[in-house]
Amino acid sequence: MTHPAQDTIIALATPQGVGALAVIRLSGESAIDLVQAEFRGKDLTQQPSHTLHLGTLGRQQPIDEVLVSIFRAPHSFTRENSVEISCHGSPVIVREIIALLMQRGARLARPGEFTQRAFLNGRFDLAQAEAVADLIQAETSQGRQAALNQMRGGFSREIKNLREELIHFASLIELELDFGEEDVEFAKRDDLRQLIEKIRGYLARLIQSFSQGQVIKEGVATVIAGKPNAGKSTLLNALLNEERAIVSDIPGTTRDVIEDQIHLGGVLFRFIDTAGLRDTHDAIEALGIARTREQMQKASLILYLFDLANTTPEEIRQAEAELERGGVPYLKVGNKLDQASDKQVAELTGRDFILISARSKDNLALLKDQILKKLEMKEVRTGDVLVTNLRHWQQLTRTDEALARVLEGLGNGVTGDFLAMDIRQSLFHLGEITGEITSEDLLANIFSRFCIGK
Amino acid sequence: MTHPAQDTIIALATPQGVGALAVIRLSGESAIDLVQAEFRGKDLTQQPSHTLHLGTLGRQQPIDEVLVSIFRAPHSFTRENSVEISCHGSPVIVREIIALLMQRGARLARPGEFTQRAFLNGRFDLAQAEAVADLIQAETSQGRQAALNQMRGGFSREIKNLREELIHFASLIELELDFGEEDVEFAKRDDLRQLIEKIRGYLARLIQSFSQGQVIKEGVATVIAGKPNAGKSTLLNALLNEERAIVSDIPGTTRDVIEDQIHLGGVLFRFIDTAGLRDTHDAIEALGIARTREQMQKASLILYLFDLANTTPEEIRQAEAELERGGVPYLKVGNKLDQASDKQVAELTGRDFILISARSKDNLALLKDQILKKLEMKEVRTGDVLVTNLRHWQQLTRTDEALARVLEGLGNGVTGDFLAMDIRQSLFHLGEITGEITSEDLLANIFSRFCIGK
Repeated sequence: MTHPAQDTIIALATPQGVGALAVIRLSGESAIDLVQAEFRGKDLTQQPSHTLHLGTLGRQQPIDEVLVSIFRAPHSFTRENSVEISCHGSPVIVREIIALLMQRGARLARPGEFTQRAFLNGRFDLAQAEAVADLIQAETSQGRQAALNQMRGGFSREIKNLREELIHFASLIELELDFGEEDVEFAKRDDLRQLIEKIRGYLARLIQSFSQGQVIKEGVATVIAGKPNAGKSTLLNALLNEERAIVSDIPGTTRDVIEDQIHLGGVLFRFIDTAGLRDTHDAIEALGIARTREQMQKASLILYLFDLANTTPEEIRQAEAELERGGVPYLKVGNKLDQASDKQVAELTGRDFILISARSKDNLALLKDQILKKLEMKEVRTGDVLVTNLRHWQQLTRTDEALARVLEGLGNGVTGDFLAMDIRQSLFHLGEITGEITSEDLLANIFSRFCIGK
Repeated sequence: MTHPAQDTIIALATPQGVGALAVIRLSGESAIDLVQAEFRGKDLTQQPSHTLHLGTLGRQQPIDEVLVSIFRAPHSFTRENSVEISCHGSPVIVREIIALLMQRGARLARPGEFTQRAFLNGRFDLAQAEAVADLIQAETSQGRQAALNQMRGGFSREIKNLREELIHFASLIELELDFGEEDVEFAKRDDLRQLIEKIRGYLARLIQSFSQGQVIKEGVATVIAGKPNAGKSTLLNALLNEERAIVSDIPGTTRDVIEDQIHLGGVLFRFIDTAGLRDTHDAIEALGIARTREQMQKASLILYLFDLANTTPEEIRQAEAELERGGVPYLKVGNKLDQASDKQVAELTGRDFILISARSKDNLALLKDQILKKLEMKEVRTGDVLVTNLRHWQQLTRTDEALARVLEGLGNGVTGDFLAMDIRQSLFHLGEITGEITSEDLLANIFSRFCIGK
């Protein structure tokens, strides 16, 4: 799948804003010639691939002193001739350099166009290309690891192998069809059944991994519930403030912390604000409480907060019954430990309560441990394959459905042409994951999610 | 001025945030060894300077696929061994890579520490180092050009030459002092006077250039004045909106446009909000108007707006008289052209009024031309030397004052020891500009203004 001669595209590759440096990237057959036309320094067109050259950009009016990286096809990210210009990190300089090189014939890259060219030129398959976007947008260490695994081949390799085995059977069955009435059987039905069961076993693992993959990518939807004044906001703030202190440890990497997100042990938790739960006759408050109950049902985790100084055993029993009925993983948290009587503490000790004080930050570390334990969040390790992409999950599910029909057909002894149809269907869905089968629309849809410059 | 063996510093060099890629920079004797310890790919310690290498960072647990640039001392920005790691532009990845290499012994760079090392290792003088910060923070094309000129040598060369000539005379005069009573004159007084007059002429040009330099750097403080309802806000919005459209031409380079700043012809205009001017008995309103008058006095430009449909000739005369008294450059702008009668327009035509309609955007281009013309903003060209830095301006002024005392002394026939003292004083101030004379405090003060990673 080689790519026809292309125009040269240009874009800022580093984040917008002021910094020590910014990198502008060009790719296309004439990328090097085009930069050379505005470069004062060595003759770039004579330099080998993977070398760096200091010089001035702007022949008429110098814009900046820059460091130029040369990559010669096919030894570049896009497999085309490529140049990276490292200039001083001022938006004015970036704009002037891009404008100057556009006058020389470069055109602005569309979002994801560099990665799209890399895919079209066979550098990696579609699932790997999509992982590039996930890698850039990773918000946690685990998400970063999952995306890296996928970018480095991940399940692409497995899926390709399985697909080839299936193709082998499909071609045997199609061969049978050619012989028409002769009733030959080139494809052994038992071998086919075994292969499909093996594939479905693998697909099932991938499909199941999607829920962990989603959690890693989107975060654990967490509700802090409890009666009014149980200390819900105080707890959320205490967790958020500790997080802020950690996040800002390394200057230059501070992110905009979203009000209600925290990272615990590499996992992202999204807190959903709720109204306090109590019996009420106020119609509007009742609506708020109904919404809280709804959110508790949809949550991945509930932290149920009791005010230790102000909760009756009966209230605790009611809440426990409600949590059990809900079926959502939950933790019972006794708050205001600093205000509780010894008797209250003694009553709950030994039961499955985590006793904290959100205000004086007692036992917060214990709470965090328990949260991670509850979710049994496993570390993502090198080589672990997780499906984090909705499109992949859909195609895997469709593949599995088609293969289930093949098995059903084998059980019912249907004819080869019916089997062939469902096998072809499963091959189609597998092929769309890795991009062996693509359409313009599919590609446009995928790459428009990228940022410009990638 | 060579630099002792240094620890290895590390920092993110590109702006914070999500992007296609981010660049992490290291400098120090062991920079290459340190990265090699966590790099899977070629042996970086064996690679020549100015080469690029693809590999994986993180030996135990891979963090990302990266492109590593190797620079060997003295052929780097800092003149030390340096490495630039180009990784995927995710804050998570950046943080993990920096943390990993800190475990290997790198330490976080202080703001400006890379440039400070470049200065200490003799790559450029202090005035040039300061221009690096100005280059990064340049908000306009002209500011960028002025900073680049200064970074590439600019007035540093001239000042060094002048300083050497002065040193020559200073040493001759000091020699005279050694001969004590003998009344010899090694330093010809006429030659000294000529030299000092030449230097003062050059200093005067530099000192004068500071006002244009400041305007380029900080923007032209512009007041839109006029009676209430003359259309001041409408005009400001019309100018700002056009600017926005231009600014966002090249995706990826859009800046946060500050509410009241616009760029016209490469020059930054800072608009200062004012209360409408009218006779009033209301004490609070009177205070507002007094403030407006104060701001008009401090402004670099006043756009005085008249409502064409609602201004008497007497009001115009009063305003003109006030503007003349103020002495600040001003333009008289007749607004609401679309609502004005033919008679009103005829009365003002041929006089120095610019007739516009801010609401329907008539004649805005004409107004912009006139603004630039009024300020006689010259384009900054390659080689033009402008003083944009307050510290340089102060030192130049102090040098000039000391030289004036030398001339005065020559006129009064004072003894060599007094002349020598003032010449030494001027040498000190000149030397502080280029960093031939420095102190810890001076350096700390200068480099703390830099961003981290530069």
